[in-house]
Amino acid sequence: MALDKDAVKRRAIEIAGRLIDEGGAEALQMRAIARELGVSVGSVYNIVGDIDALHRLVNVDLLDELGMAGSETTERLRRDGVRDVRTRLIALAETYLDFVERNHVKWAALLAFNRSRPSVAMPESYMLRQEMLFDIIADVLADTPLRNDDTRRQTAARALWSAVHGIVTNNFVGRGDASLAVESRVQIDLLVTVFVRGLLVEI
Amino acid sequence: MALDKDAVKRRAIEIAGRLIDEGGAEALQMRAIARELGVSVGSVYNIVGDIDALHRLVNVDLLDELGMAGSETTERLRRDGVRDVRTRLIALAETYLDFVERNHVKWAALLAFNRSRPSVAMPESYMLRQEMLFDIIADVLADTPLRNDDTRRQTAARALWSAVHGIVTNNFVGRGDASLAVESRVQIDLLVTVFVRGLLVEI
Repeated sequence: MALDKDAVKRRAIEIAGRLIDEGGAEALQMRAIARELGVSVGSVYNIVGDIDALHRLVNVDLLDELGMAGSETTERLRRDGVRDVRTRLIALAETYLDFVERNHVKWAALLAFNRSRPSVAMPESYMLRQEMLFDIIADVLADTPLRNDDTRRQTAARALWSAVHGIVTNNFVGRGDASLAVESRVQIDLLVTVFVRGLLVEI
Repeated sequence: MALDKDAVKRRAIEIAGRLIDEGGAEALQMRAIARELGVSVGSVYNIVGDIDALHRLVNVDLLDELGMAGSETTERLRRDGVRDVRTRLIALAETYLDFVERNHVKWAALLAFNRSRPSVAMPESYMLRQEMLFDIIADVLADTPLRNDDTRRQTAARALWSAVHGIVTNNFVGRGDASLAVESRVQIDLLVTVFVRGLLVEI
């Protein structure tokens, strides 16, 4: 019987995500995936490519999950009629923190993956998802004086993303200490509050 | 003849730093260090501890180098009579970027080291150096309305440090692509400029 390749690929990505969650990137082994799928190691390679390709698929899924969480927050804020820029940015940062808390092993593995393969161009699918994350922030910034300068608005969205990411990573990723999560929130609140105030007095 | 332990330790740290620079953390091997020092592998373990302890000593040296670079920038700004907070923070961020460009392999190895040993408490010597880096920024922020609130000033210093670090890391660390360094500078300039403006209008 022919394998349903798409279904097997889907399941391989799920198993891969769970293996990383349980044991970090080192636990991502083709043999373990083949065993769970009940197919040969060769079949797994044929269907998903090598370990790096599979880890990249897990990472694209992760970005999708983060993107969806961000969109849900945006949707909720819109429904609740929240217009205040600071409140919306803090809610998005909070969404990111929750996501990192939920996925901290996979997220740390994604960061290490990207860092250890600096010269490899990311696939289009990955870059697209990253752009969508920046766009969620850029949309909020459209309600500030940055609305008149798309280039600067994009730069600000990326800078804010990286700033919040830096705070979360330095304080929290891979540590999972609750007091560090609190410290992250205090720093994010101050940074976003002061930054938005600086934006709004922009002439 | 008895070994001069301090001198051997100093040289072991230097060799370790060079090995990491040339081949990443994987290249840090006790055997290679013993060979260069002309002593037994056992002697190296006796003098510097294990590989993790040695890598940590390299990292403390790295933080020292960054701290000294920051102090030099602070000193130069003072000599030149620069009082503007934004200019001083940008100069410090620039110092950090230069440092990362100069030490990008060792710096990426330090980040990976800290991330992969999340549950291990950092030694006092490491934490002290980190505090000194935060203090360099906190000193600049003493020339803003934050001077009246030491807790908030410390939080702001840490948030800014992590924000700039996040921007540099996301755009640049381990990639060494000149256009990404330019993008880092554009984002840092915007973030710091808007943040400082927000601070200065603080009531």
